[in-house]
Amino acid sequence: MSSTFTMIGGEGPNSYRQHSKYQGALVEAAKEKINEAISTKLNIDLTSKLANIADFGCSTGPNTFFAIQTILDAVENKYQQDIDFQVFFNDSSNNDFNSLFKTLPPTRKYFATGVPGSFFGRVLPRNTLHVGVSSFSIHFVSMIPKEFKNRDSPLWNKDIYCTGFSKKIEKLYLDQYKIDMEIFLNARAQELMSSGLLLLLGGCLPNGVKMSETVNGMMTDIIGSSLSEIAKKGIIDQKRLDTFKLPVYFAQVDVLKQIIEDNGCFTIEVFEKISHANGEYPLDHEYLTLSFKATVGGSVASQFGQDAMEKTFELVKEKTQEMLPQIAKAKPGFQYLIVLRKN
Amino acid sequence: MSSTFTMIGGEGPNSYRQHSKYQGALVEAAKEKINEAISTKLNIDLTSKLANIADFGCSTGPNTFFAIQTILDAVENKYQQDIDFQVFFNDSSNNDFNSLFKTLPPTRKYFATGVPGSFFGRVLPRNTLHVGVSSFSIHFVSMIPKEFKNRDSPLWNKDIYCTGFSKKIEKLYLDQYKIDMEIFLNARAQELMSSGLLLLLGGCLPNGVKMSETVNGMMTDIIGSSLSEIAKKGIIDQKRLDTFKLPVYFAQVDVLKQIIEDNGCFTIEVFEKISHANGEYPLDHEYLTLSFKATVGGSVASQFGQDAMEKTFELVKEKTQEMLPQIAKAKPGFQYLIVLRKN
Repeated sequence: MSSTFTMIGGEGPNSYRQHSKYQGALVEAAKEKINEAISTKLNIDLTSKLANIADFGCSTGPNTFFAIQTILDAVENKYQQDIDFQVFFNDSSNNDFNSLFKTLPPTRKYFATGVPGSFFGRVLPRNTLHVGVSSFSIHFVSMIPKEFKNRDSPLWNKDIYCTGFSKKIEKLYLDQYKIDMEIFLNARAQELMSSGLLLLLGGCLPNGVKMSETVNGMMTDIIGSSLSEIAKKGIIDQKRLDTFKLPVYFAQVDVLKQIIEDNGCFTIEVFEKISHANGEYPLDHEYLTLSFKATVGGSVASQFGQDAMEKTFELVKEKTQEMLPQIAKAKPGFQYLIVLRKN
Repeated sequence: MSSTFTMIGGEGPNSYRQHSKYQGALVEAAKEKINEAISTKLNIDLTSKLANIADFGCSTGPNTFFAIQTILDAVENKYQQDIDFQVFFNDSSNNDFNSLFKTLPPTRKYFATGVPGSFFGRVLPRNTLHVGVSSFSIHFVSMIPKEFKNRDSPLWNKDIYCTGFSKKIEKLYLDQYKIDMEIFLNARAQELMSSGLLLLLGGCLPNGVKMSETVNGMMTDIIGSSLSEIAKKGIIDQKRLDTFKLPVYFAQVDVLKQIIEDNGCFTIEVFEKISHANGEYPLDHEYLTLSFKATVGGSVASQFGQDAMEKTFELVKEKTQEMLPQIAKAKPGFQYLIVLRKN
């Protein structure tokens, strides 16, 4: 039942590496706030002259390198000492670590290590981590309720994700999300040293907004309807499509905040909306299609094959172009920087 | 000028993973001695309840998993505490870490990390390592003198390695070897904590024995003559073959010991000959060919292409079969366990 969701590796035209500008822009926009948070909130023991930094859900870069460098610069700037930095790049063991390692910045001033394993669980020893970061990761769930995949179940989810229109489906997604966030936060709390910081960057929903009302939701709806269309053409199997559900859930702001508070391992130091200079997404069907291909394409390919994935995204591009007037009127999402201090 | 020497990755029929039994057998044969060395010589501070173990030149497994588990069991057995283990699998960034990570033992009781980078240099922070191990790694040199590759040079090496028959060539290989061992030992000395142990497993030459008189040397000679033959047939370019030199050097026992003593960072706690239960190699041309294909095949393929590599090793198999009577009379090599304690 467990789901893995791996970005397209390598450096090819469909790779996450080439098309994760959207994710990168958030780190860029949050850079000053990350600096400030580390400067004012980080209070750790560096007598060992070693600072350990980890990225949970790093994918293949280059965003992870930028996020890590931002944190490293801020720590160095604050402590002004001769410190060794060890960086732990964590992602599932399906991640393309070979690509990650080959593209490490040659001028980096840290010891790089890769840590294979799901961040829904411990991946580092106790009390060893000074600063952790996770970008666009905590909207994943570790599994999808079985009922969602069964057409005969009253809980069958006709969509490939949680649109927000069915209360029953919403509740089950949220239940799973709470379980997973609890596991995620507990694991990080064990790994972090006392007073260590956990930085979370990503997207969620403004209070009262349904996923299908945002660009992210609209694009996912387009991917869903494109898959339906190619199933009708017989290119993919309808039964396989019925079981295809994305393991993602975007919580509303106050729900996310409440989950962190209820967990109790961390103090929320920062919970801020980050605004991109150029808005959330450019209104460009090519850009939108490639962005979602880089993130969702891997799952589509592993369920239906590479060829069907390519055909699906050709259709996605057409449909996105037609939908641009509606996409222009989408409700904005909520992109955040959250800084948590381990209690 | 720098050389890399990467084992064949993945799990395919030519992979190092499938054909590194020779290397694995040494760890198996040394297991009791490793236990004993850790039990009597390891004296480290574990108040942090964390033990860091590294394998320098780990390749893709499974030998590295066995070596690490042997060390981990010995440390656990000695300290009898609740300790977290973090294991650092180091190899060049060309190593197939994706395969390594996918084949990690599912029942392992340690946090696994991959560390990309040449062990001829620092790959871990200062004073963080409790026990390091390196198996069949310290016979590599980081580069080959330019003169060896130039047919017009008086120092041209007509062979693909150091056979031991030319004093001039031997001296240049040894000079480079001393430089590299110094770099290797200094790097490990910085990474290890005070009194940390460095375990070295591998092969060298008994005093007074030439490389070409051992099975390793004979097999390398066969690879060299096979390459010459397929160059004569026009399958590979003779000029490219002239520049193809393996970046390996097997020192004689006393020379190796002297290099470690001269370095001065470590105390030699153990320097022992390890004898396999079944001798060094079985007298089997298929086994011998596959073993050397797994280690040397990657270099041959990257210099001459996959197809030429396959043709070369078909020839190697034939020649090895013909040579079995001579191989049976080869002088034994010297396989060692060296245990060094950081001063």
